[in-house]
Amino acid sequence: MFSKAGLVLFTTLLAAFAPADALWPLPRSLQQGSTALTLSCSFNITIDGTIPNAPADLQQAVTRTMGYLQNDKLGRLVVGRGSVDVDAYTNASSLSTLTLTLGQGAVVNSIATEAQKAPEARDEAYTLTVPSDGSGATLSANSTLGLTHGLTTFTQLFFYHNATTYMLNAPIQIDDSPAYPYRGFMLDTARNFFPVQDVKRMLDAMSWVKQNMFHWHIVDSQSFPFEVPGYTELAQKGAYDPESVYSAQDVADVISHAGARGIDVMLEIDTPGHTAAIAQAFPEHIACAYMTPWATFANEPPAGQLRIASNATMNFTAGLLAAAAELSPSTLFSTGGDEINMPCYAADEPTQAALNATNQTFEQALNTFTQATHSAIMAKGKTPVVWEEMVLSFNLTLSNDTIVFVWISSEDAAAVAQQGFRIVHAPSNYFYLDCGAGGWVGANPSGNSWCDPFKTWQFAYSFDPLANLTDAQAPLVLGGEQLLWTEQSGPQNLDSIVWPRAGASAEVFWTGPGGNISEALPRLHEVSYRMRQRGINTINLQPKWCALRPGVCDLTA
Amino acid sequence: MFSKAGLVLFTTLLAAFAPADALWPLPRSLQQGSTALTLSCSFNITIDGTIPNAPADLQQAVTRTMGYLQNDKLGRLVVGRGSVDVDAYTNASSLSTLTLTLGQGAVVNSIATEAQKAPEARDEAYTLTVPSDGSGATLSANSTLGLTHGLTTFTQLFFYHNATTYMLNAPIQIDDSPAYPYRGFMLDTARNFFPVQDVKRMLDAMSWVKQNMFHWHIVDSQSFPFEVPGYTELAQKGAYDPESVYSAQDVADVISHAGARGIDVMLEIDTPGHTAAIAQAFPEHIACAYMTPWATFANEPPAGQLRIASNATMNFTAGLLAAAAELSPSTLFSTGGDEINMPCYAADEPTQAALNATNQTFEQALNTFTQATHSAIMAKGKTPVVWEEMVLSFNLTLSNDTIVFVWISSEDAAAVAQQGFRIVHAPSNYFYLDCGAGGWVGANPSGNSWCDPFKTWQFAYSFDPLANLTDAQAPLVLGGEQLLWTEQSGPQNLDSIVWPRAGASAEVFWTGPGGNISEALPRLHEVSYRMRQRGINTINLQPKWCALRPGVCDLTA
Repeated sequence: MFSKAGLVLFTTLLAAFAPADALWPLPRSLQQGSTALTLSCSFNITIDGTIPNAPADLQQAVTRTMGYLQNDKLGRLVVGRGSVDVDAYTNASSLSTLTLTLGQGAVVNSIATEAQKAPEARDEAYTLTVPSDGSGATLSANSTLGLTHGLTTFTQLFFYHNATTYMLNAPIQIDDSPAYPYRGFMLDTARNFFPVQDVKRMLDAMSWVKQNMFHWHIVDSQSFPFEVPGYTELAQKGAYDPESVYSAQDVADVISHAGARGIDVMLEIDTPGHTAAIAQAFPEHIACAYMTPWATFANEPPAGQLRIASNATMNFTAGLLAAAAELSPSTLFSTGGDEINMPCYAADEPTQAALNATNQTFEQALNTFTQATHSAIMAKGKTPVVWEEMVLSFNLTLSNDTIVFVWISSEDAAAVAQQGFRIVHAPSNYFYLDCGAGGWVGANPSGNSWCDPFKTWQFAYSFDPLANLTDAQAPLVLGGEQLLWTEQSGPQNLDSIVWPRAGASAEVFWTGPGGNISEALPRLHEVSYRMRQRGINTINLQPKWCALRPGVCDLTA
Repeated sequence: MFSKAGLVLFTTLLAAFAPADALWPLPRSLQQGSTALTLSCSFNITIDGTIPNAPADLQQAVTRTMGYLQNDKLGRLVVGRGSVDVDAYTNASSLSTLTLTLGQGAVVNSIATEAQKAPEARDEAYTLTVPSDGSGATLSANSTLGLTHGLTTFTQLFFYHNATTYMLNAPIQIDDSPAYPYRGFMLDTARNFFPVQDVKRMLDAMSWVKQNMFHWHIVDSQSFPFEVPGYTELAQKGAYDPESVYSAQDVADVISHAGARGIDVMLEIDTPGHTAAIAQAFPEHIACAYMTPWATFANEPPAGQLRIASNATMNFTAGLLAAAAELSPSTLFSTGGDEINMPCYAADEPTQAALNATNQTFEQALNTFTQATHSAIMAKGKTPVVWEEMVLSFNLTLSNDTIVFVWISSEDAAAVAQQGFRIVHAPSNYFYLDCGAGGWVGANPSGNSWCDPFKTWQFAYSFDPLANLTDAQAPLVLGGEQLLWTEQSGPQNLDSIVWPRAGASAEVFWTGPGGNISEALPRLHEVSYRMRQRGINTINLQPKWCALRPGVCDLTA
């Protein structure tokens, strides 16, 4: 993890470097020169003898990298674009090779295997060296995961003009590793459905900013688009339609696509709230399903929560979570736990009868329920991940290694840390990408977004993961994620609502916090324009006039 | 126009109808039954003998309509989608023909010719009759423009399920015409550039909700992407790059595409502010070009305004506007006039010298300048259109028929009306589509959108064009438009930021205000999903669960 003392020192060191124009996230140690190099037409990437029988996904990463180098064709964002670099790159030395090498004693695993270790056990570090004379560049790491991050960085060194691919800042020496082990993005695929191809496109973009956790909020009260072996009726009856279902094969496909790009997929089946869709197949397990007025029984329509006091429901849920957990190689699995609605349970006769029969309080029953569901996934080797209410709103006995999403407010991190739990920062007041688009509930003409205002990249970028934490608590912070709840989203605006904004947290949690937004903006423009060259519909953050003139559109310029 | 007394009566009548599920905007008179009809495989659209030598654009409209009927394949938005309609459409009568006819004495003009008349001179009315027994449907109008609106309505009657295209509500009798003659959308193509294909896609979508004015804010301080004959250096030097220019041919292409769809294109060259880009080619005409701090000299970077007190600049501007006006057949041309910055002129020595030499006040000089530029376009047959400051901030002598965009606040309409000018409602507090996305100016981490909050469709839909106006002033309201300023937009998010939101004003100004948002929402979902079938990336307004269940996600449901 990352101590406060270390942070101050590190930030000071960073300021001493002139950052490369187009690197995102900024490497934690970067030395660069000002010599141009062109990419030779015969340029190739070699995997050396330290990696015998290179894993297939590493070979594919090399092939993808070659594709980006050839196809990015990104004009540098300056007035005149690449034409101003002609003098620099004409007659420059030519780079012919990049050699990938693993450190002595490193075990050769696939990228996916490395990416699917526990976050804190992953070795994501790499060293990239590009000499200024055109002699071979070297990328070394102690894992194939480190190598894939290094390949990503390598592609960001290059611009394109007039049939020439070139870099401007050789010699380069980058020694890089993330400040935090969890750098994620959450997508809700239940309010509206996203075909596999959209999820994969999102994963591609995540990998380009070195995000390593895809938090897949795969089901919710509105739909259950997830085919879980043994529980297939849930999707058959709870999905919007047969086409809007992730089959077990689809989930495996997404996990494989992610893994090959250094990303771990954490599934979430939110419980006990947010489960109305389960009532389509198993009405006996759901309290106040579709009851109205919905606003009394849920934070949004439709109402419906698992009957936590029912043994049958507890066993059903534990079984479902275990079956779902088996589909994912990740060490993490989220059981949710947000927005439990008490009037719903108060109005549910079976729940009240069960509580009375066993002489339990609601909290006691929730504790029993949670222990059963957590035990089920822990038996599958998973670490439970929960929303903050599970530790802040109820007095439950949770495993010490439970990880907590802080979402209601960044202010709540301190209270979670005080209980000794590890934290993933997912605060609505910084990282919710859906905020600010107005109210979506019907018949509410003046309705605004509950989490107004819009969370700009600049504001997300100003997030301090250690705010209000003691030095002793700092190691509890695993990292953070930006999140998209999809009441007002779909494949149509996925790219534009997420990118390049979600790059903000990617840099905060890789490079570390405290970055200067004026310094960051030109690089964010570059990574955004590069993503666009690769097929992501990233939005403009500013008029192009500003994008071409770093600093000139700053407030005080 | 539309009187207040008429509005009350009309709203009352509307409530008596059960509106067709998927019509947008809602016709002003609609009678419908509940008989299903299928579209025959041999269905065709006939242009009858009242339209000899049918204009090419009408024939193309018929061909497009056939394409939509065949390809929309829109499943009705109910639980179960079209499967719930199988009983209704099985064994239903089959519709084989729609006949287009023009009223006695109607002159046969192309759609474009009709669309390019002065807004208040256009005849957009049509009558559509679909009998319930499968006998021929009839579409009649007194202009080809009316016919094209009727064709659009006709396509919205049909749903698709299991290889069957069907409607549910025969017999239909629609007598329709717009409440207001100006129903527009404004796009800024200067902050960021939009290729012609994106502009055309936007025009297509506009036509599907019967919008009839494309207000093309084609140039601004950031770039000048407009090749004006005789002034081609402006684009050569002022565009972002040679690819980001609308050639005169491109502009003609856009105008032709729009005209064929019933849309008039009003060009705007904003003067005297918002003109820094002109300095690239003609620095002698621009005061405080690129001066810093920009915030002193302009509302956004970069600063730069035409030297209104210079005769040379006045003549240059008049010539430019006249040349631009010649490119458009519209009766309207906007000379802009917003956000004139006084410190800029105060700091500009040539301007101060000219004012002193002629012993004029700034306002006198602006009056002279404006009369010259307006005379230039009036000589080309255009009616001048200006932003509200030109009548509210300065005491200028303007032609009585000048049309005024009310943009700063909807509250300002009354003051404009008091001066007797005609009004196009373009209020930032209702209709600015860019609001709410956070601040875009650099180095401003907590910066929010200046016109927060986001303008939801519901709020836009609640707009009252006659608020604070007297009955006598009501006829001054020509209509209104939703607007997209593109500091944070580009082709990447054009569809998603505009649609289906811009449908809100389309209905307010066609059907008339006062519509009920609960009644409107299901229809807006339908038109949005239909647009998507036609290639527009409209966003989801709600979870699909809500879209399938009208009313169930209302605030009080």
